Amino acid sequence: MGNCSQGCQHYFCRPKNTNVRVSLPAVCFVWQVAMIILFGVFVRYDKEADAHWSETKKEENITSNVENDFYYRYPSFQDVHVMIFVGFGFLMTFLKRYSFGGVGFNFLIAAFGLQWALLMQGWFHSLDPVTGYIYIGIENLINADFCVAGCLIAFGALLGKVSPVQLMVMTLFGVTLYAVEEYIILNLLHAIDAGGSMVIHIFGAYYGLTISWVLYRPNLHQSKRLHGSVYHSDVFAMIGTLFLWMYWPSFNSAICYHGDGQHRAAINTYLSLAASVLTTFAISSLSAKRGKLDMVHIQNATLAGGVAMGTAAEFMIQPYGALIVGFCCGIVSTFGYLVLTPFMEKCLKIQDTCGIHNLHAMPGVLGGVVGAITAATASNAVYSPEGLINTFDFQGNFATRSVTTQGAYQAAAMCVALIFGIGGGALVGLILRFPIWGDAEDDNCFDDEVYWEVSGTTEADVFTLHTPSYFSLQSV
Amino acid sequence: MGNCSQGCQHYFCRPKNTNVRVSLPAVCFVWQVAMIILFGVFVRYDKEADAHWSETKKEENITSNVENDFYYRYPSFQDVHVMIFVGFGFLMTFLKRYSFGGVGFNFLIAAFGLQWALLMQGWFHSLDPVTGYIYIGIENLINADFCVAGCLIAFGALLGKVSPVQLMVMTLFGVTLYAVEEYIILNLLHAIDAGGSMVIHIFGAYYGLTISWVLYRPNLHQSKRLHGSVYHSDVFAMIGTLFLWMYWPSFNSAICYHGDGQHRAAINTYLSLAASVLTTFAISSLSAKRGKLDMVHIQNATLAGGVAMGTAAEFMIQPYGALIVGFCCGIVSTFGYLVLTPFMEKCLKIQDTCGIHNLHAMPGVLGGVVGAITAATASNAVYSPEGLINTFDFQGNFATRSVTTQGAYQAAAMCVALIFGIGGGALVGLILRFPIWGDAEDDNCFDDEVYWEVSGTTEADVFTLHTPSYFSLQSV
Amino acid sequence: MGNCSQGCQHYFCRPKNTNVRVSLPAVCFVWQVAMIILFGVFVRYDKEADAHWSETKKEENITSNVENDFYYRYPSFQDVHVMIFVGFGFLMTFLKRYSFGGVGFNFLIAAFGLQWALLMQGWFHSLDPVTGYIYIGIENLINADFCVAGCLIAFGALLGKVSPVQLMVMTLFGVTLYAVEEYIILNLLHAIDAGGSMVIHIFGAYYGLTISWVLYRPNLHQSKRLHGSVYHSDVFAMIGTLFLWMYWPSFNSAICYHGDGQHRAAINTYLSLAASVLTTFAISSLSAKRGKLDMVHIQNATLAGGVAMGTAAEFMIQPYGALIVGFCCGIVSTFGYLVLTPFMEKCLKIQDTCGIHNLHAMPGVLGGVVGAITAATASNAVYSPEGLINTFDFQGNFATRSVTTQGAYQAAAMCVALIFGIGGGALVGLILRFPIWGDAEDDNCFDDEVYWEVSGTTEADVFTLHTPSYFSLQSV
Repeated sequence: MGNCSQGCQHYFCRPKNTNVRVSLPAVCFVWQVAMIILFGVFVRYDKEADAHWSETKKEENITSNVENDFYYRYPSFQDVHVMIFVGFGFLMTFLKRYSFGGVGFNFLIAAFGLQWALLMQGWFHSLDPVTGYIYIGIENLINADFCVAGCLIAFGALLGKVSPVQLMVMTLFGVTLYAVEEYIILNLLHAIDAGGSMVIHIFGAYYGLTISWVLYRPNLHQSKRLHGSVYHSDVFAMIGTLFLWMYWPSFNSAICYHGDGQHRAAINTYLSLAASVLTTFAISSLSAKRGKLDMVHIQNATLAGGVAMGTAAEFMIQPYGALIVGFCCGIVSTFGYLVLTPFMEKCLKIQDTCGIHNLHAMPGVLGGVVGAITAATASNAVYSPEGLINTFDFQGNFATRSVTTQGAYQAAAMCVALIFGIGGGALVGLILRFPIWGDAEDDNCFDDEVYWEVSGTTEADVFTLHTPSYFSLQSV
Repeated sequence: MGNCSQGCQHYFCRPKNTNVRVSLPAVCFVWQVAMIILFGVFVRYDKEADAHWSETKKEENITSNVENDFYYRYPSFQDVHVMIFVGFGFLMTFLKRYSFGGVGFNFLIAAFGLQWALLMQGWFHSLDPVTGYIYIGIENLINADFCVAGCLIAFGALLGKVSPVQLMVMTLFGVTLYAVEEYIILNLLHAIDAGGSMVIHIFGAYYGLTISWVLYRPNLHQSKRLHGSVYHSDVFAMIGTLFLWMYWPSFNSAICYHGDGQHRAAINTYLSLAASVLTTFAISSLSAKRGKLDMVHIQNATLAGGVAMGTAAEFMIQPYGALIVGFCCGIVSTFGYLVLTPFMEKCLKIQDTCGIHNLHAMPGVLGGVVGAITAATASNAVYSPEGLINTFDFQGNFATRSVTTQGAYQAAAMCVALIFGIGGGALVGLILRFPIWGDAEDDNCFDDEVYWEVSGTTEADVFTLHTPSYFSLQSV
Repeated sequence: MGNCSQGCQHYFCRPKNTNVRVSLPAVCFVWQVAMIILFGVFVRYDKEADAHWSETKKEENITSNVENDFYYRYPSFQDVHVMIFVGFGFLMTFLKRYSFGGVGFNFLIAAFGLQWALLMQGWFHSLDPVTGYIYIGIENLINADFCVAGCLIAFGALLGKVSPVQLMVMTLFGVTLYAVEEYIILNLLHAIDAGGSMVIHIFGAYYGLTISWVLYRPNLHQSKRLHGSVYHSDVFAMIGTLFLWMYWPSFNSAICYHGDGQHRAAINTYLSLAASVLTTFAISSLSAKRGKLDMVHIQNATLAGGVAMGTAAEFMIQPYGALIVGFCCGIVSTFGYLVLTPFMEKCLKIQDTCGIHNLHAMPGVLGGVVGAITAATASNAVYSPEGLINTFDFQGNFATRSVTTQGAYQAAAMCVALIFGIGGGALVGLILRFPIWGDAEDDNCFDDEVYWEVSGTTEADVFTLHTPSYFSLQSV
C-alpha cells in the first residue's frame, strides 16, 4: 500500500501541489452552507431549551428550574469543550515548526465536526418520528464534542503529513462512521460506554492509524529536521496535557446518569489518572540513561488512565480498581512509546506522529476489557437492585438482560469499534490518496510554512533545524 | 486631530517622559483607598450571600440551598472570569515584544475596573433606597466582569501605544460611561442584551477606536520593527483565542434568566461560534497567495460569532439562525482585517492595534441588528405567552409593550451605545492627550522595555527585530 | 546547618550522583503498589457516590438528584484541580531552563500526594469505626487537592535544587504531617479555615522554608547563569498566575457550607485578590528606576490576597474588609520580594527559589490573624443566631463555645501550623540530606538537563546563558 503500483502511478504519484486557495475555501463554504440548510430543515431546541419550558414544567410537574438538565451537565460540558480545543489542540503543538497547524487545524476540524455530529447523532438518537425534527439540548452538545474527539485522535496520527482539506474530508467521514458505530454499540448492542473507551478511543485510534498506513510516506525521513520538539514547544504541549488530565473526570462523567453515576465516574477517573502518572514517570526513567525523563511520555502516557476508565467509569469497580487500571495503563502506554511506535513505523509502515496507538488504542482496548469483565461480574449486592438497573440501563427491551450477557455485549461492542475504525480508515485513506487534496511532499512535512503565513522566523529556529543533535550547555 | 495645532504645540508636543514611578503608584494607591472607603460606605452582601440567608430561606419558603443563585451562575461566572483575564490577556500577547504589557496591563485594569464597576453598576441597579446600601451577589460579580470587558476591548485598539497610567484613566472613565449607558439601555429603554453585543461590544469598540483616533501617532511606523508577531507569541495568543471561544457560551448565558434562557443562549452561541470558524478559515485562505492562512484572522475573526450572538442569545432564533449569524460574521470580520484596518489607518487616521473594529464593532452592530429584527418578529406561537414574557421581561411598566415596539427600542439601544462610545472616547481621548501620563515616543511603542524590567533578551529576538521579512527555512 | 560538620563530612559531602534510574522508578512503583493495597483494604465510595444512592435517597427522604453533594461542589473542585496542576505547575516554569522540572515534577508529586492524602485524611476524618472503611466523595477529592497544595508550596522553595526522589519523600512526609496538623486544627481546636490560610499556607511555607534552610547550598551562586527567567518563560509563568488568581474564589469557597457560605467566600476572595493586584503594581513600580514593573512581583504578590482570605473566607468581614486585607497583602508581599528574600538568603541562609515566604508565609499569617480577630468579634446581630452556628459550626461539643474563645482557638491554630511546618521541615530536611537521593551539585542546579532528555537547545538559550546582563535592543 505504501508504494504506488505501476498502474496508477501516473495519477497518484504526480508532483504535489500544496496550493489550497480554491479547495479549502470551497470545502469550508459548501459544507457550512450545507450545515445551515440541514439545520434549518431538521434541528430545533429540545424542550428544556425551548421557550415553552415554563409550560413543560407545569405539565411534567417540575418544581424548580434547577431540574433543567443544563444545570446538571453544563459545568461538565465546558470542561469537555476545553479538552477538545485546548487539550487536544495544545497537545499537538509539540513539534518545533507545526504549532500553528497543530492548534489551528484542530480548531478548524473540531468546529466543523461538531456541527455535522449534531446532525448525524441527531438522526440516530434524537429524531422525533412525528415532527421529523432533531431536538437538541446540552447533552447533544456534549455528545457532539465526544464525536469530534474521535476525529481529533485520528488527526494525531496524521499530524504534519496531510493538508487541511484532507483533514476536513477525514472529519466528514469520521463523524459519519462514528455516529453509525455509536448507534450500533449504544443502542443495538446496548453496551455501556459513558467515557467512550470503545466508541471514541478504539474507533478514533484505529481509524487514524489505518489512514496513516494507507497514506504511508516512504521518504518521510526527509522531513526529519522538523520532526521533533524544541524546549518551548514541549512546554506548550504540557498545557494540552494538563487540561486533558485535569478535566478527564468531567469527560467520563459528563453523560452518566444524574446523581451517584456522575459522582462515581469522576472519582474513578481521578484515581486512575493519578496512578498512571506514577507508572509513566517510573517507566520513562527506567528506560533512559541516567534515569532521565522523556517529555513525550509525560505528555501522553500520563493520560492513559483516563482513556482506560472510559467504559467502566460509572461501574462499581471501587477506588482500588481504578488505581489498578491506571497503574497498568501507564506502563503499557509508556512501553508503547519506547518499543511499539518505532516497530510500527519500521515494520508495519504505520507512521503515527503523536503515538495515538499508545495513548488511545491500547488503553482503549484495556478499558473495553475492564468494562466487559466488571459488567459481567456486577451483582445486586454491590449495586443494589435499583442501582444495577440505573447503571446498566436494564429497562424496556433490555429489562431481562443478565450481567453476564451484558459482559458479552460489551466485548462485542469492542469488536464493532475496531471494525469500524479499521474498515472506515481503509476506505477514507484511499479517498485521501487522490492527488487533489493539496498535501505536501515527503521533504516538506511538519512545516507550518506550507499552509500558514509565518511572519518571522527566529535565528534560534534556523539554528535548531540544522543541529538536531543535542548541544551541551556545559561544553560551550 | 492627528496633528498638533500651533496653539497648543508647546504643551502637547514636548518630549515624552515615560517615567511612571510617581504617577502609577499614586494612581493605584489613591484609587484603591477610594474603593475601600466607598465600599465601606455603600457595599454589603446581598441576601443570598449574607449569613441571614437561613432566615431568608424560611421567610421566602425556599426549601433547598441549591436555589441560591450562586449555584445557577457560579460556573458561568468562573468561565467569564477566565475570559477576562486569560482570554483577553493572552489574546494581546501576540506582539513580539509586548507580551508582558498585553497580559500584565490587562490584569491591572481589569482588577481595578471590576471594583469601580461594582460601585457604578450598584448605584444604578442594586442600590436599596431605604438603607442606602448596594447589595452584591454573584450576578453583580458577573456584571462587573462584563463592564470590564468593555474597557479591555478599548485597550485592544490602544495596545502598545499608551502608558499604564493612561489605561487606568481610560478604565475609570470607561466604567463610568458604561454604567450610565447600560442603565439607559437596559432600564430606561428596556432593551434586551444578555451577552452585550451593544452594551459591551459596540460601546467598548467605538470608545477605544475614538480614543485611538484622538491619540493618532503620525510616526508610528518608526516602531514598525516591533509591530508584529513571532512564532511563539502567536501560539501564546491562541491560548487567549481558545479560552474566549470555548467560554463564550457561558458569557452570553451567564445572566440570562434561569432554565431555558441560559440553556438556549449557550446552544445559540456554541453554534454561531462554530460557523464563524469555518468562514474565517475560508476567507483567510482565499485572500492569500497559495491559500496560506493568516494567524491574525484565526486568532480574532473566529470569535466574531460570539460577539454577534450577544443580543439575541436567548431569543428563539433557532439553531440554523445562529449558524447564519456566525457564517456572516466570520466573513465580515475577516474582510475587515484584510481591507478595513489598513484603510482606517491610512485614511481615517485610526490606528487599531488588535483590529477591534473587525472583531467587536462590526459583529456587535450585526448582533444589535439581529437582536432588533428577531425581537420585532417574536410571537406567542414560537415563545408561548409565558416564554415571551420571560424572554423580553414584559412585566411592570413594560407589561403591555408589543414586540414591534421592543424591536424599535432594541435599535435605539444600538444608537445609544454608539453615541456613548464615540462621545465618551472623544472626551477621554482629549484627557489622555495631556503630556503628563508617561506614554512613549512614536519610535518606542510596542516595547515592553519601557514599562517593564526585561531580565534577558535572546539572540533570537534581536535577530528577528532586524529581519522582519520572512527567512525561508529551506533556503538556508 | 549549611556547612557540613567534620564528623559527617565523609558521608554527607561526597560527590553527588544525579542518576535516578533506580531510585525514581523504585519509589514510584513501591508507593503506587502500596496505594493500591491500602485503597483495597480501606477505601470505598461514600453513600452519594455509591450505587445504593437510590436507596439512600428514599431513606433520607431526598427528593432530587441535585441534592447530591456532587452538584454543589464539582465545579469548585475542577477549579481547584486546575489551580493545583496548571496554576502551581506553570507558576514554576519561570526559570529559563527549568520549565520541564517546574511543571513536570509538580505533576508527579501532586498525582502521588493526592492518593496518599485521601488515605491520611480519610483515617482522620472519614473512617467509619464500624466497617473500618474510609468512604470518599467529592469533598474528599477537594481536601486531597488542598493537602497537596501544601506540599507544592514547599516545592516552591526547593525548586531547581532537589531531585524528583527527594520531592517524593518530601511529599510523603508533608502529606502525613498535614493530615495530623489539619486534624488538630479543625477537629481538636475546632478552628475554621475554609481556604487554608493556616492549614495549607502557613504549614506549607514554613515546611518548605525549613527544608530549604537545612539543605542550604553555600555555592549556589555557581548556578547563577540559570537562576533567572527569559522573556517567554515569564509569559508561561503568567498562565500559572492567572489560573491561580481567577480560580482562588473557588479554592476558598470549595468546602464552605452550602448556600450563603460558599457564596460569601467567593465574593470576599474575588475582592481581596483585586485589591492586592493594585498595591502590587504600585509597590513594584515605586521600587524601580523609572517605575519599571518587575514580573516576579506581578506573578506572585498579586495572589497574596487570596492566601490571606483563606481563614476568614466565609466570615462576615464585609466587602470593604476583604479589600483592606488584599490591600495590605499586596504591599507586604511585594516588599517581601524586594527586601526579605535577599535578606533571608544572605543572613538566614534560606534559599527560597519562588519566594514562598512572601506569597504564602506572610499572607498566611496575616490571614490567620484576620481570621482570629473577625471570629472574636462576630455577633448575633451581624450573623443572625443560625448564621453564627452555621459559620462557626457551633454544634455538638462546641455548641456553647463563645466567639471570643473561638478567636483564641483560631490564634492557637496558627501556632500549631507554624510548629508543624518548622518541626516537620527540620526533620524531613535532615532525611533529605542523606546523599542517596540523587540531587545535583551546586553548579548544576536549575537545569532541566539533569533529570530530563532535552531534545534540542536553541542558540538563543545558549546565548542568554552567557549574557545574563540585559542587552538593549535599541543599542544594537
